Amino acid sequence: MNSLFTVTHRDGAARRGQLRLPHGIVETPVFMPVGTRAAVKGVTNEQLESLGAEIILGNTYHLHLRPGDELIARAGGLHNFMGWSRPILTDSGGYQVFSLADRRKISEDGVVFRSHLDGSAHTLTPESAVDIQARLGSDILMMFDECPPWPGTEDVIRDAVDRTLRWAQRGRDRMLALRSGAVTDVPRATPDQVQFGIIQGGTHLAMRDRSVKGTLAVGFDAYAIGGLSVGEPAPTMYDVVAHTAAQLPEDRPRYLMGTGTPTDLVESVARGIDMFDCVLPTRNARNGQLFTRDGVIVIKNARYAEDLLPPDPECSCYTCTHHSRAYLRHLFMSGEITSATLNSLHNLHFYLDTMRGIRKAIEFGNFDSFRLDFLRRQETFRQKKEAQ
Amino acid sequence: MNSLFTVTHRDGAARRGQLRLPHGIVETPVFMPVGTRAAVKGVTNEQLESLGAEIILGNTYHLHLRPGDELIARAGGLHNFMGWSRPILTDSGGYQVFSLADRRKISEDGVVFRSHLDGSAHTLTPESAVDIQARLGSDILMMFDECPPWPGTEDVIRDAVDRTLRWAQRGRDRMLALRSGAVTDVPRATPDQVQFGIIQGGTHLAMRDRSVKGTLAVGFDAYAIGGLSVGEPAPTMYDVVAHTAAQLPEDRPRYLMGTGTPTDLVESVARGIDMFDCVLPTRNARNGQLFTRDGVIVIKNARYAEDLLPPDPECSCYTCTHHSRAYLRHLFMSGEITSATLNSLHNLHFYLDTMRGIRKAIEFGNFDSFRLDFLRRQETFRQKKEAQ
Repeated sequence: MNSLFTVTHRDGAARRGQLRLPHGIVETPVFMPVGTRAAVKGVTNEQLESLGAEIILGNTYHLHLRPGDELIARAGGLHNFMGWSRPILTDSGGYQVFSLADRRKISEDGVVFRSHLDGSAHTLTPESAVDIQARLGSDILMMFDECPPWPGTEDVIRDAVDRTLRWAQRGRDRMLALRSGAVTDVPRATPDQVQFGIIQGGTHLAMRDRSVKGTLAVGFDAYAIGGLSVGEPAPTMYDVVAHTAAQLPEDRPRYLMGTGTPTDLVESVARGIDMFDCVLPTRNARNGQLFTRDGVIVIKNARYAEDLLPPDPECSCYTCTHHSRAYLRHLFMSGEITSATLNSLHNLHFYLDTMRGIRKAIEFGNFDSFRLDFLRRQETFRQKKEAQ
Repeated sequence: MNSLFTVTHRDGAARRGQLRLPHGIVETPVFMPVGTRAAVKGVTNEQLESLGAEIILGNTYHLHLRPGDELIARAGGLHNFMGWSRPILTDSGGYQVFSLADRRKISEDGVVFRSHLDGSAHTLTPESAVDIQARLGSDILMMFDECPPWPGTEDVIRDAVDRTLRWAQRGRDRMLALRSGAVTDVPRATPDQVQFGIIQGGTHLAMRDRSVKGTLAVGFDAYAIGGLSVGEPAPTMYDVVAHTAAQLPEDRPRYLMGTGTPTDLVESVARGIDMFDCVLPTRNARNGQLFTRDGVIVIKNARYAEDLLPPDPECSCYTCTHHSRAYLRHLFMSGEITSATLNSLHNLHFYLDTMRGIRKAIEFGNFDSFRLDFLRRQETFRQKKEAQ
């Protein structure tokens, strides 16, 4: 046991736990809604709190460029700036800058890139990624890693893993220097910030082993699995998750970055994951795709034009208890902003409620039957759709 | 006294009253948020109720085209369809079809127009405007009128007034036929719907007199003043409002259509108006303009980049009690949907709260001092801005 994380129940490889962060306690397994630019798209903080969101994500790349981490630091940190009092995790910006393709240049020092906003040149290094996140004052900051595209040859992946390990050491050294007071010119809105290392290695299990070994040797407060949900088949991802999670410390939370569908969450909890984030619930909401117990509803379909049922008749969210598919279809077809809000409220509720179901099932020791029921209903829907 | 409306207090020409509608009682003077396409842009019904909105507007032209009034009738009417249980007023569609310019043709029968959505041909007549609104099942339906552009010559305005009077009679006849049961093929979701006549006449006082006399002779449940807030100077509008309102029945609510700025509301209450609607609070919110006690804030201005004050330090709305100008500027500059929501919540609160202040002032018999204080603060801001 340590002060950061306690596992309270186990059911197979699935864990039920509590994560103690500077801005509050988080019940795990947990899903973290994504607030890229200091807002979860389409909803207010009050709505997020009502939905039961215990921790959200902010994005280092976007906030560094606009409004700037120094401005946010002067406003007292990201919590103060955006008016969110519960925990926040910030990513390192690595994933975004590597996605910039022809707008970035990688060197041993870090990544030089051009802003997607105005073309201005910026540099992100293992050290500056720590400093930016210290200024933002998130509860959890992520180390700066290299995230190569999938599929990658073993050679390409090995180079990325090895560079990421050297960057891990530099990022950790910087973090410890900030903690010890050796660095004094970086304001820290949340002095008890914890730092997560990131395991890379693509879908090559030997490279995952290499990354785990090196990252554990550096030593972080906890560990995340990166470089998945980037195009590989789901069964491959599940195998890599199972293989990697099993090697991570039992007494630390395990965070699977950027994943995924509701099925992915359930399958990854079954393989020992405690934390998730993903843009799917909010992005798909804006595209008119609603997650339900029986699969995804594409609300623009003509079949919903006069359907007076709620999106998910078993759902207790604001949208499902007040509105019909017919109305939501009308709002989506009309391009009303309220469409994005109502769909996001539903999808976020669905994700957060799925996590509540997962936590309860682990507590009661029946997670495997929960999992099989959940997957069967999602799968039945998929087969019905394919048969049409 | 009648069952529709009671004036409970008077203060000069200003009136404090209660409007009894099929879906609830409305305290007047009242501002009605506009939900053009069965949604007030950027906010949920729950948020609207929390803001204290007692009645909202729906738009006949837009709802007739999409999703269609027959579909809405099959869903049980507009209240059921959109999940709003408080009163709704629907306009007649006249204003929109006359705005279509080269896409419409006026005849004595009505207006033939092409949909802005798909170019399909539609006809709106005094009778069909009643039928559509009967299917929508609003609490208040408006007669179909001709709204000529400003400025218009006296001849043009006279023709429009006279045609509007002929249409008024036809619209009223149709309404009475529906009420009496003589027409049976039009479903009526709200059988106790009331019908408002509309006074036209532009800025020609003699034409206003002609319109008042003719419309009163037809006889509606209550009366609205149309054809203002279409480009004429504010002082001209106030003169026409004062001149026209004074001729309308004392015991019926008076509705000034499509108006206006906060100053317009206060000035028009002082001239005897009881009801208002306007897209300004929500449209300006989406454009980053925030109404405050001291005038309008344009949130994108660089001066707000690090301004940690709320938009209006005296405001008790969700936005002002949780967020700073700096954060709202960031959301606006980033194009976040949440920007539209937070700004709309504030602007709608400002309008609805101004109306609460107006109602209280009339009750206490100090409306004139309320009015002068209100105008002085709005005006001081304008002068300060011009001096910069």
